[in-house]
Amino acid sequence: MSKSLNIGLVGYGFMGRTHSNGYKRANDFFDLEYRPVLKAVCGRNADNAKAFADKWQYESFETDWKKLVERDDIDAIDICTPNNTHAEIAIAAAKAGKMVLCEKPLSMNTAEGEEMVKVAEEAGVKTTVWYNYRRVPAVTLAKQLIDEGRLGKIFHYRANFLQDWTINADLPQGGAALWRLDAAAAGSGVTGDLLAHCIDTAIWLNGGIKDVNAMTETFIKERQHNLTGKVEKVSIDDACAFLCHFSNGSLGLFESTRYARGHKALYTFEINGEHASIKWDLHDLHRLEYFDHRDDSLIRGWHDVHVTDGDMPYMGNWWVPGLQIGYEHTFVHQVADFLKDLETGAVTQPDFRTALETQKVCDAVLNSAANRQWTEVG
Amino acid sequence: MSKSLNIGLVGYGFMGRTHSNGYKRANDFFDLEYRPVLKAVCGRNADNAKAFADKWQYESFETDWKKLVERDDIDAIDICTPNNTHAEIAIAAAKAGKMVLCEKPLSMNTAEGEEMVKVAEEAGVKTTVWYNYRRVPAVTLAKQLIDEGRLGKIFHYRANFLQDWTINADLPQGGAALWRLDAAAAGSGVTGDLLAHCIDTAIWLNGGIKDVNAMTETFIKERQHNLTGKVEKVSIDDACAFLCHFSNGSLGLFESTRYARGHKALYTFEINGEHASIKWDLHDLHRLEYFDHRDDSLIRGWHDVHVTDGDMPYMGNWWVPGLQIGYEHTFVHQVADFLKDLETGAVTQPDFRTALETQKVCDAVLNSAANRQWTEVG
Amino acid sequence: MSKSLNIGLVGYGFMGRTHSNGYKRANDFFDLEYRPVLKAVCGRNADNAKAFADKWQYESFETDWKKLVERDDIDAIDICTPNNTHAEIAIAAAKAGKMVLCEKPLSMNTAEGEEMVKVAEEAGVKTTVWYNYRRVPAVTLAKQLIDEGRLGKIFHYRANFLQDWTINADLPQGGAALWRLDAAAAGSGVTGDLLAHCIDTAIWLNGGIKDVNAMTETFIKERQHNLTGKVEKVSIDDACAFLCHFSNGSLGLFESTRYARGHKALYTFEINGEHASIKWDLHDLHRLEYFDHRDDSLIRGWHDVHVTDGDMPYMGNWWVPGLQIGYEHTFVHQVADFLKDLETGAVTQPDFRTALETQKVCDAVLNSAANRQWTEVG
Amino acid sequence: MSKSLNIGLVGYGFMGRTHSNGYKRANDFFDLEYRPVLKAVCGRNADNAKAFADKWQYESFETDWKKLVERDDIDAIDICTPNNTHAEIAIAAAKAGKMVLCEKPLSMNTAEGEEMVKVAEEAGVKTTVWYNYRRVPAVTLAKQLIDEGRLGKIFHYRANFLQDWTINADLPQGGAALWRLDAAAAGSGVTGDLLAHCIDTAIWLNGGIKDVNAMTETFIKERQHNLTGKVEKVSIDDACAFLCHFSNGSLGLFESTRYARGHKALYTFEINGEHASIKWDLHDLHRLEYFDHRDDSLIRGWHDVHVTDGDMPYMGNWWVPGLQIGYEHTFVHQVADFLKDLETGAVTQPDFRTALETQKVCDAVLNSAANRQWTEVG
Repeated sequence: MSKSLNIGLVGYGFMGRTHSNGYKRANDFFDLEYRPVLKAVCGRNADNAKAFADKWQYESFETDWKKLVERDDIDAIDICTPNNTHAEIAIAAAKAGKMVLCEKPLSMNTAEGEEMVKVAEEAGVKTTVWYNYRRVPAVTLAKQLIDEGRLGKIFHYRANFLQDWTINADLPQGGAALWRLDAAAAGSGVTGDLLAHCIDTAIWLNGGIKDVNAMTETFIKERQHNLTGKVEKVSIDDACAFLCHFSNGSLGLFESTRYARGHKALYTFEINGEHASIKWDLHDLHRLEYFDHRDDSLIRGWHDVHVTDGDMPYMGNWWVPGLQIGYEHTFVHQVADFLKDLETGAVTQPDFRTALETQKVCDAVLNSAANRQWTEVG
Repeated sequence: MSKSLNIGLVGYGFMGRTHSNGYKRANDFFDLEYRPVLKAVCGRNADNAKAFADKWQYESFETDWKKLVERDDIDAIDICTPNNTHAEIAIAAAKAGKMVLCEKPLSMNTAEGEEMVKVAEEAGVKTTVWYNYRRVPAVTLAKQLIDEGRLGKIFHYRANFLQDWTINADLPQGGAALWRLDAAAAGSGVTGDLLAHCIDTAIWLNGGIKDVNAMTETFIKERQHNLTGKVEKVSIDDACAFLCHFSNGSLGLFESTRYARGHKALYTFEINGEHASIKWDLHDLHRLEYFDHRDDSLIRGWHDVHVTDGDMPYMGNWWVPGLQIGYEHTFVHQVADFLKDLETGAVTQPDFRTALETQKVCDAVLNSAANRQWTEVG
Repeated sequence: MSKSLNIGLVGYGFMGRTHSNGYKRANDFFDLEYRPVLKAVCGRNADNAKAFADKWQYESFETDWKKLVERDDIDAIDICTPNNTHAEIAIAAAKAGKMVLCEKPLSMNTAEGEEMVKVAEEAGVKTTVWYNYRRVPAVTLAKQLIDEGRLGKIFHYRANFLQDWTINADLPQGGAALWRLDAAAAGSGVTGDLLAHCIDTAIWLNGGIKDVNAMTETFIKERQHNLTGKVEKVSIDDACAFLCHFSNGSLGLFESTRYARGHKALYTFEINGEHASIKWDLHDLHRLEYFDHRDDSLIRGWHDVHVTDGDMPYMGNWWVPGLQIGYEHTFVHQVADFLKDLETGAVTQPDFRTALETQKVCDAVLNSAANRQWTEVG
Repeated sequence: MSKSLNIGLVGYGFMGRTHSNGYKRANDFFDLEYRPVLKAVCGRNADNAKAFADKWQYESFETDWKKLVERDDIDAIDICTPNNTHAEIAIAAAKAGKMVLCEKPLSMNTAEGEEMVKVAEEAGVKTTVWYNYRRVPAVTLAKQLIDEGRLGKIFHYRANFLQDWTINADLPQGGAALWRLDAAAAGSGVTGDLLAHCIDTAIWLNGGIKDVNAMTETFIKERQHNLTGKVEKVSIDDACAFLCHFSNGSLGLFESTRYARGHKALYTFEINGEHASIKWDLHDLHRLEYFDHRDDSLIRGWHDVHVTDGDMPYMGNWWVPGLQIGYEHTFVHQVADFLKDLETGAVTQPDFRTALETQKVCDAVLNSAANRQWTEVG
């Protein structure tokens, strides 16, 4: 008999869907003792919350997250609301003894994040932050290859996350699907939204970041605000690039923008080591590029690895070689790992404490850009 | 309130999983009046059938498909068993008034297929065959571009399906996962397994095939047989290539093999028209390559279309631009279309009658290879 | 002191330029005892011949190839005229004791080619045919990898040569740059022009071809003829595809057309062996794709080899790693090899006898298409 | 009758070869009034200079560049020696009334460069600096597309130049082919060698750079010095990355290193504009990637333009569509443009004054890295 893990989901937007899908699919593909039960979804608008509950087969819905947090039949609170609500909900949930699964970034800033870590650790509740790209099989494979020492000493790490969806000056900011353009709700622009992903992966793969030197830009200075109906100053960063030093002596180069025509969600990273290099790209997330200088010189070149064989991370649970999975599977994997860790008692990475490291780098990046100088990471 | 469609699944192998996943996901992503209910799975081995039912949350299991077909609480029979059982089960199901969803190829041969069509049409039951690749969004997009006339007159159609999983001479044939190497169960080798997919897509995109000229080869002549324990002659085609003429005057070139090192499941097709050409590749199924000679000459080149925007076929139901889906989604799409067609009364393509056309080409191909001559299609 | 090799060039079209460039560059990059001297170019139009001589610094020009062949100061006759003149000029040159470098294909048909071989061998003159693609460094590398046995037993060889320059029905045939569309001058269409290249490479890499089964098509049935001014039937093959068996037991699949939108000169081949596979593509001629199943499974994938390092064939004579060469270099290489072989007494491949093998396959292909049946090669 | 341009080449290393090839090929492919005559090559080692003269057919050789500069039969001095000699030779040549073609970078620093510009302009001699990548047809095409306004307002420019040839710690520095690792001869490491190329192209395509913020690193701190025989400190930058602002408001990101495994000479740039984006890559220099948001949404994607058609920059002078040229052709193009400009009186870009702008950016980059702060460009 499987054990239930009763889920209470706060927020039913894009991330509400990815997480719900994760809960509903994990046990079809992974052998797990625990099985998530979709107990309740919570949203301020009752009609929308009910519609979401019906579609995704949640047993009930709430319109006040505080009530959800208090419910005895909920084991875990999953936070899919805008960034400015993460801390309050997470802290309340932890204090209520619930496990907390929080969408990234952890918080609006380091201070908030530190409080979240403190409360969660004091409460002794299991936490995780949905930095889902760690669980793309090709990215997990990269981690494995690095940990095996195949790359040798690392010289360079570069990552970018390029989009093009906000170039239109007529796009408003704020509210519903556009809260990411509103600094009050999002905290920052591409730094917290996109670079946070790049930084989480980078720290995981290449260790801590010591100092950063950043440049940000807001190309469209004013936009209509959906919540006020007025044209207001845009306070988020449309683009951000930074140089950095990693603790292991390698150099880092990061860039993100929503003004790169031709790139929808192009998260890429590349790592150059003494012996070997690795490249990955979200637009073809099922592939990993690998170059090894130790290959016989006549056939030396980038290996284009189609990460679909059964011996690749997670892939033994899906189909057969050659048949790719996609974006949403990263959330299924995170659910599967969370459930398995619940079974074994392991920490599911990244937990709040780990995710706080990314928050510190984001803060340093924004500070560096504001002050136009090299800035130590917190 | 949604209406139920009660599913009875026969067979719990690889295709049992892809279909089950389709049934379980369709309503999370598509707005549909009908919702599949996983009533029962059927398999000869009770332990395995029960395990599958538990994992995938089927309400019950059966060990005799004839009992399943007779059950009043089943609306539709889904056939995922080896090819040599399709006809018998489909005919019984149709006669019992069940809808029939049959894994491809339709049948062992044209004669069997004609009988299946006849019975199903007489019974007036809804049918479909799982030629799932039609519902890769990029492939559906190709169909749309062709139907809009963008390519103009077609000159060439070429397709291949390359794999490399049977090169090892120690691989046995027959039984369980290896029934595809046993002619008694599979009918043929790559022709029915892989070329059938290529042919179905080709007819859909480019119209009927008039005549064919084929060559087949069996590289490994004998293999241990799992069912008899003896080394037996291999009767399937390991490789098959054929030339053909389409009714629209274009030339066709098809090839399939399981002896192409480096290709796991490389189904590709390319269509060359007077004005424009299209290429697609299963290893990157979320992309479509498009070349249009009418582009301004300075920027003329193959367009690498990342088929993830909301205005692409099926994609408005999934995530956001840039985030790819994978192999299994083709089955979700087929379920969603089947359910929608049930609602509207439309025929879900390919039905048995349409799928019979592919069977006729397969038969002509095998006859041509056997007789070493051009052969008219049925 | 270098020794001179006095060149007499017949024809000053496209191939006249590629060969002349080969003669002028070889000694800048290769250490060779012999140095070509551009003695004379020959063409029927005196103004054009003189202009070509001036531009390319030929010492003189002729308007009658028979006079060129008789000149004492000429060591080697290079034939760059349409196919229907190869035999006559080559035979006369050989009888006059000249070395003969003949543009491909060797001849209009096998009978003509046999006569050319016979006369050249009786005369004991050095010959070569400009199947230049053998000397793309990546192709030469492919040969080397195959000869080292890296691929193991070969299962499949496929090649195609796709162009799109004759789709316009208003394009006339015959004369000057368009003699390739005139069967009287060219002998055949894509078979002799493009497939001949594919066949030459295939025989070189994979051994002899036993039998073929071909299909040809002429999409545009009539075109204005430049020489007569009348609309005339088009007798060349616009497209040709064939199946074949190689002597080593592998299957072959070849296709060529001038009606494939989006492909300018896409000569590609792929070879699938028991252990490894190779792919190459003329549009990126400086790359070779290599897959080896024996690679560690976690990093197994196609190697994208940028064939520019100094240990790659021919590349030590050019620049530094990463800096690519192009199409014309294949002719420089053939000149360099011809000169080196002259020094050492080696045969320069392909000589007339070797090139005759390709002619035999071309004849079998055209016969097979005409008779719609499998045809033995020569 | 063509007019002669008598060339005196100083230095016979790698660049001596690329330039010599340019002089020898330009008139074969371009219609030009002037024809270069290889009068003399100069090098300190008489044997080497003579061998180079013999191989490349220079009429004579010198061992003292001052004598070459004084020769009456020399029209133009071409400087291919290490960076620390550019200024002295160029200034002497200009004062002697010779045209000067100088290998990049212009000088060791801005001050030296300013003196070179001053002397050359006072002398009224024609100058050019071999920033050859401007004349890759795909790069020239990029310039044309930008100048036509196709991209609209520019948001981002990013470029990198990645190599991997100095990772081996046993590689010595200094002397002959390794002078680039010796700060005394090279001035800097990747900044002057590689980033100078990226900066020249960037200014040409996207206008001036206002300020920079750079980071440099020397991974291998000490190497054996070939000239002294001792292990000495390495003073060059092994890697350099910088952020910048362009005058047009766009953000720039540049990186170069010789420690990126898998990249031999990977110079890439990408420009993101309001409407369209462009990408280019030296490893496939015959291709340009172009994305235009105004394309019909169903077929919107990166255009992979194979820059070989006759209407592409420079390509009408070479072969036929589909047949690529290579690295060395950029020098042929620069010679052809220089000769054509000589005929018409136009300035050949970049001349010394233009190349000085790149020098200023390089100096700002090195200063910024040394001082760890944003630095205005001089």
